[in-house]
Amino acid sequence: MPGMMDTVLNVGLNDDSVEGLAAQTASERFAWDSYRRLVQMFGKTVMGVDGDLFEEALDKTKEHKNVHNDVDLDAADLKRLVSTFRSIIKKKTGRPFPQDPTEQLHLAIEAVFRSWDNKRAQDYRRHNKISDSLGTAVNVQAMVFGNKGADSGTGVAFTRDPSSGENKPYGDYLENAQGEDVVAGIRNTVPLHEMGRLQPQAWTELQQHMDKLEKRFKDMCDIEFTVEQGKLWLLQTRIGKRTAIAEWVIAKDMVDEGLITVKTAGQDRVTAGKLDELFKPSVKAEEIKGKEPLARGLNASPGAAVGRVVFSADDASAWADRGEKVILARRETNPDDYHGMIASQGILTSAGGTNSHAAVVARGEGIPAVCGADAIRMDTKNKHFTVGETVVAEGDWITIDGTQGTVYKGQLATEPSPIDAAMMGNKKARKAKLWQAYEEIDAFMERKRKMRVRANADTPEQARNARARGAEGIGLCRTEHMFMGEERVAEVRKMIFASTAEAEREAYKALLPLQRRDFVGIFKAMDGFPVTVRLLDPPLHEFLPNHVDLEVEVALVEAGAKKMGKKKLAERKQVLAKVRDLHEANPMLGLRGVRLGIIKPGLYAMQVQAIVEAAVQLKKKGLDPRPEIMIPLVATAEELRQMREELEPVARRIIKRSGVKLSVEFGTMIELPRAALCAGEIAEHADFFSFGTNDLSQTAFGFSRDDIGKFLALYEERKLVPSNPFATIDEAGVGRLMQIAVQEGRAAEPKIHLGICGEHGGDPDSVLFCHGLGLDYVSCSPFRVPTARLAAGQAVLGTAQTSSK
Amino acid sequence: MPGMMDTVLNVGLNDDSVEGLAAQTASERFAWDSYRRLVQMFGKTVMGVDGDLFEEALDKTKEHKNVHNDVDLDAADLKRLVSTFRSIIKKKTGRPFPQDPTEQLHLAIEAVFRSWDNKRAQDYRRHNKISDSLGTAVNVQAMVFGNKGADSGTGVAFTRDPSSGENKPYGDYLENAQGEDVVAGIRNTVPLHEMGRLQPQAWTELQQHMDKLEKRFKDMCDIEFTVEQGKLWLLQTRIGKRTAIAEWVIAKDMVDEGLITVKTAGQDRVTAGKLDELFKPSVKAEEIKGKEPLARGLNASPGAAVGRVVFSADDASAWADRGEKVILARRETNPDDYHGMIASQGILTSAGGTNSHAAVVARGEGIPAVCGADAIRMDTKNKHFTVGETVVAEGDWITIDGTQGTVYKGQLATEPSPIDAAMMGNKKARKAKLWQAYEEIDAFMERKRKMRVRANADTPEQARNARARGAEGIGLCRTEHMFMGEERVAEVRKMIFASTAEAEREAYKALLPLQRRDFVGIFKAMDGFPVTVRLLDPPLHEFLPNHVDLEVEVALVEAGAKKMGKKKLAERKQVLAKVRDLHEANPMLGLRGVRLGIIKPGLYAMQVQAIVEAAVQLKKKGLDPRPEIMIPLVATAEELRQMREELEPVARRIIKRSGVKLSVEFGTMIELPRAALCAGEIAEHADFFSFGTNDLSQTAFGFSRDDIGKFLALYEERKLVPSNPFATIDEAGVGRLMQIAVQEGRAAEPKIHLGICGEHGGDPDSVLFCHGLGLDYVSCSPFRVPTARLAAGQAVLGTAQTSSK
Repeated sequence: MPGMMDTVLNVGLNDDSVEGLAAQTASERFAWDSYRRLVQMFGKTVMGVDGDLFEEALDKTKEHKNVHNDVDLDAADLKRLVSTFRSIIKKKTGRPFPQDPTEQLHLAIEAVFRSWDNKRAQDYRRHNKISDSLGTAVNVQAMVFGNKGADSGTGVAFTRDPSSGENKPYGDYLENAQGEDVVAGIRNTVPLHEMGRLQPQAWTELQQHMDKLEKRFKDMCDIEFTVEQGKLWLLQTRIGKRTAIAEWVIAKDMVDEGLITVKTAGQDRVTAGKLDELFKPSVKAEEIKGKEPLARGLNASPGAAVGRVVFSADDASAWADRGEKVILARRETNPDDYHGMIASQGILTSAGGTNSHAAVVARGEGIPAVCGADAIRMDTKNKHFTVGETVVAEGDWITIDGTQGTVYKGQLATEPSPIDAAMMGNKKARKAKLWQAYEEIDAFMERKRKMRVRANADTPEQARNARARGAEGIGLCRTEHMFMGEERVAEVRKMIFASTAEAEREAYKALLPLQRRDFVGIFKAMDGFPVTVRLLDPPLHEFLPNHVDLEVEVALVEAGAKKMGKKKLAERKQVLAKVRDLHEANPMLGLRGVRLGIIKPGLYAMQVQAIVEAAVQLKKKGLDPRPEIMIPLVATAEELRQMREELEPVARRIIKRSGVKLSVEFGTMIELPRAALCAGEIAEHADFFSFGTNDLSQTAFGFSRDDIGKFLALYEERKLVPSNPFATIDEAGVGRLMQIAVQEGRAAEPKIHLGICGEHGGDPDSVLFCHGLGLDYVSCSPFRVPTARLAAGQAVLGTAQTSSK
Repeated sequence: MPGMMDTVLNVGLNDDSVEGLAAQTASERFAWDSYRRLVQMFGKTVMGVDGDLFEEALDKTKEHKNVHNDVDLDAADLKRLVSTFRSIIKKKTGRPFPQDPTEQLHLAIEAVFRSWDNKRAQDYRRHNKISDSLGTAVNVQAMVFGNKGADSGTGVAFTRDPSSGENKPYGDYLENAQGEDVVAGIRNTVPLHEMGRLQPQAWTELQQHMDKLEKRFKDMCDIEFTVEQGKLWLLQTRIGKRTAIAEWVIAKDMVDEGLITVKTAGQDRVTAGKLDELFKPSVKAEEIKGKEPLARGLNASPGAAVGRVVFSADDASAWADRGEKVILARRETNPDDYHGMIASQGILTSAGGTNSHAAVVARGEGIPAVCGADAIRMDTKNKHFTVGETVVAEGDWITIDGTQGTVYKGQLATEPSPIDAAMMGNKKARKAKLWQAYEEIDAFMERKRKMRVRANADTPEQARNARARGAEGIGLCRTEHMFMGEERVAEVRKMIFASTAEAEREAYKALLPLQRRDFVGIFKAMDGFPVTVRLLDPPLHEFLPNHVDLEVEVALVEAGAKKMGKKKLAERKQVLAKVRDLHEANPMLGLRGVRLGIIKPGLYAMQVQAIVEAAVQLKKKGLDPRPEIMIPLVATAEELRQMREELEPVARRIIKRSGVKLSVEFGTMIELPRAALCAGEIAEHADFFSFGTNDLSQTAFGFSRDDIGKFLALYEERKLVPSNPFATIDEAGVGRLMQIAVQEGRAAEPKIHLGICGEHGGDPDSVLFCHGLGLDYVSCSPFRVPTARLAAGQAVLGTAQTSSK
């Protein structure tokens, strides 16, 4: 069970424990403080009383005494608080706080087991893909006390920096306190190394333990410890959570130190699902040069985030659901805020340290966070915060830099991450340890991978970028954009409005040289690698004006409410007639893909001519273009057979005339259930299949991606879908269709190439699934190519956890 | 190979055959006529010359001579015609008419084999689902001549009336003519029994042969015969084509005559795919009482048809594709018109007899036809026809009555067919032989059928009608209409606009008693039979005004071009905002079905309450309502589990409170590919599955039924789909999904009931497929219930031909 879910519950104190103790001496204060903590924690966690009630009572007492920290309360205050807490419990639960330590223990144990099924545990598991059937454990142990005075304290230590990965101890220490004070971020901690001054002996001992633990576990560890009157107690240790950067830096250092092998590093120490965090942009240097931030805080989780401020987890979740980018601002966060935190671009708190709940969750989830920005006065009730005179209200844009710990008003420009800069050839960036770590592990994985990794790229620039990031070809080159742009749209409209085959041919003739030039650029950028070109897919009405706008415009002109020349009006009405004619109830299931190719003879032939002539042109110059021509939206073998029968001779003629040797493959997307179910028959006419898992998921589930916004979040929350089927392949349904297609496609045509070009190609779990299916390659967006490369390697090595640690 | 495809080709005559023959005597005339026919037929059929060229030359000659029939031409005319025909051939093909009889024979044989692949043969096979791989045969035999003078002739005879089924010989005879003259309908034939006067001996002989043939084949036969100078020759015989009515009447008579058993009658003599022709309406008696028809012709194919006149097969096909009902009007039809004929509601010709091409095809396809309406002057070039002063132009509405042979202007009201009237209890109609035939065979099938047959019916009236037609329950009761109607829509809109759960509940409360009343009516009508109620399925925007209209209206008001009160405008704008909010890119794949039930808590619960309270009410009165509640559009098991968890207690509570015993089943439609693929899991929460093959076909193929109009016809023509997947289940894709769902659903839950409620439930081929899958029932539109009952029985008996004979 990952750390954020564990709960420490103290039991064993009761009225007898403080019987006859006056509320005066330090040891009396300690006793009452311990009892107060126990009642508060037990009341909240075991008996289910709203924690705010205790906090409010505590705040009121501190306010009344005009002090800031719990330690400044005297024993009499604490005694009163115990009494207040107990009456809160009585009032809210109808039962008194239990006095029998055994009963306390049993209730506490039950509460821990019960916590497995609470909403935040469920949220956490769903988000992290942890099975609901694992269950949790309870560990019962004797207490030590960090709140026994100035020679006592408590802390959290990491053997290395969990944020940067740097090889030096890192953590927080808090004098005269118990563990929950550190984690809750209520009191301000001191950096761990201050222990050298405060508790020199315990510090030395802690460092020795750290060393021993790292040698034992061969990994960075985190340690919870308490110093009780000078004596160090380790409460627990486990493998430390870390940022994505730290994963790579620590792995590389440990390989260099000889602690682990590169294989171990690649297999277990770096998480494919977190790699893309490293590609997150940071705030552009020139944007902040000489600029004073609105506020400063702790750099709790790296990366820059730009979003509109919201002040509650529910708002964060609701705004995000309707597509808003938000930054969640809170005084501090607690586990009940989890759903809102993971919906946010970034998190900002005004209290809490680098190990506060906000910081831990943010790092774990790869969400940029600035914590403990104490110049900020949060007023979550009235939905704004203030820094001095400045007021930032709900919906205002802010930018946070989790790497620097800074907060700015407005939307600042961001810039690529260092690893991305290194990939794109930046020499300085290539000297960083992160890049060295990436290079070494990626090179190792390169030799292990069974699947190639291609990118989805539509332009020469995208192709170059993809290649720099490690793409081994293009798995999906969409050609829609080759029909866009002022000059081209005019020709496309001519094609749409053509009343004769001759007029249509004229339009194709005009488009041909333009598209040929596009393909020359793309093939050049991907020289030596395959490029899968998808012939025109979207419905033709996408090249015409918006239907509603046009209806309104024409109606206004005809009613005399808008002026327009007679000739222009006639032209607009002609366009409107065509738009109405092409209007579809469900364009996703309408006249698009291969259906266009069939109904508009010559359209696909023109595209094939442009592709092949471009390839021939480069081949003549000594380059190595490898075009693969993909027919989209095939539902029946006959569609592909007839299309191929029309198009292959076009390619052959051009190649023959040119005298060069060039191989051109023809294949199809498998993106409709029927195509998957009839893959054996379709394979007879295909050199390759590429799974279009976006459309396949849409049709298998009957979910239109454009329309599921209204219910998908609820579906995920209520587990009505195993997970978001557009993020990770739904194995039971979509995956099964893929499996049928792979088996029967290969049985019919053993030499067929198989790949995937849906968004899932960059999702580690889906990459693992594709590896299991035996696909030849995955193709994804250029930014996710490194993720897919790592995931494809880890699929071979059998890495346990691909999505999160 | 069915009869309409056969071709008689004469060969063996050449210049030598008529060498030295002057063009004078009758025998010389005969020789020249035979040679003329040979050249014309050979030129057209073997050498591919446009037949119109020969016809035009012939017409010109007749015009010149001022005669109407070929027989009125003298030998000199025929000699000239031969010469003209031969030069047409030379000019059009570049080669002379072959003189060598062996060469003629070889060419003719080749032509017959070639004809297998011509377009009309392909159309015919596609329409009748005949395999392309069968091939055809050629039969070479010596000629006899019916054109040797007045003591010769030719005819077509049926052993019983192929139109009414009456047990008396029927056919046409034509003096001094060859076979093609009868079939082509160029010359007017005399009724067959006139042979008794013209050729008494041959007539007696023919009747004897008829008797013998019926005893031999135990079926009605058709016979082509020629009388050559008084001697009868039978050219060929085969099982006679007949109308749907004749099928049943002949079958019943033959059972009564002891020629065949009821089993044979039910298995082989009646065609499920043609049965619904008998349910076609006829023109209402009072509509035509005392009304003179525009024209009269032969009652070539029974049934009434109302449509807009078109004058070419291409127009018929194109108009029908865009949803128009058309009647194809031609002077006469030929095989090239086939595609237009099958696209028409009815066929009208001004020439040709009851065995002309038009009549034969119309009867075979069950299309009403009036032929040989010779008062009509067709001007197909200018797209109109005239009767006296009356002009009927393209697009004008006409009504034809193929049972009476009459033609009327305009759209006349029609009335139910006699068999339907009998089903609905009409006593007179129940005395007809057709009804007796139906009753006897249906009763036999009833004992054989493995599958039950239900109907899709949404109202008490539909339910009663369905039951009268033989429905054994309702397989799909859609509840959309229960949210329609002025009073209800107001409440539905309240539900849609509700901002609180309370307001939503109010709307449900108002709808509840109305819907309960609806269900009482339906359950009453289907007392003792199961009624599957589908909870609300369509997207909510269907209950709001049209988007485009509203945008235009509001824009016009705001621009001052239309007047509207301030309050009303505000209200319209509020509706518009909601319409925009609910607008979906692909509503078919959007927020509908179970998704609505989940996002609108209380909606389905209200429907379940209405259903169960209605059933309880009837149960208390001693009736036997059997509600089955169906959750639509389920994609995941969890959707059904959670929905059932919410709804089943609602039902249980009502039943418990009422004190009656009532069983309510809960199940789902399987209408998404994922549901079929995960049927095992879904079955754990379902008492029944009903295959929604309409949506399953839409999602499997990625075809929106609303949008395929633009390409489906082309797809069928080019065989890009095996057949129209919305008419007959696509076995390879959709069928496979069904098979998976049946197997895995039954494996998980052996007691589960399985049915189908898509349109396919009334298609004989699909019924056969469902029988093979082992479904428990099919459900279809009330009119198709008799068809499904027959098809379900024939599936058990192993009937070879379900669609057409």
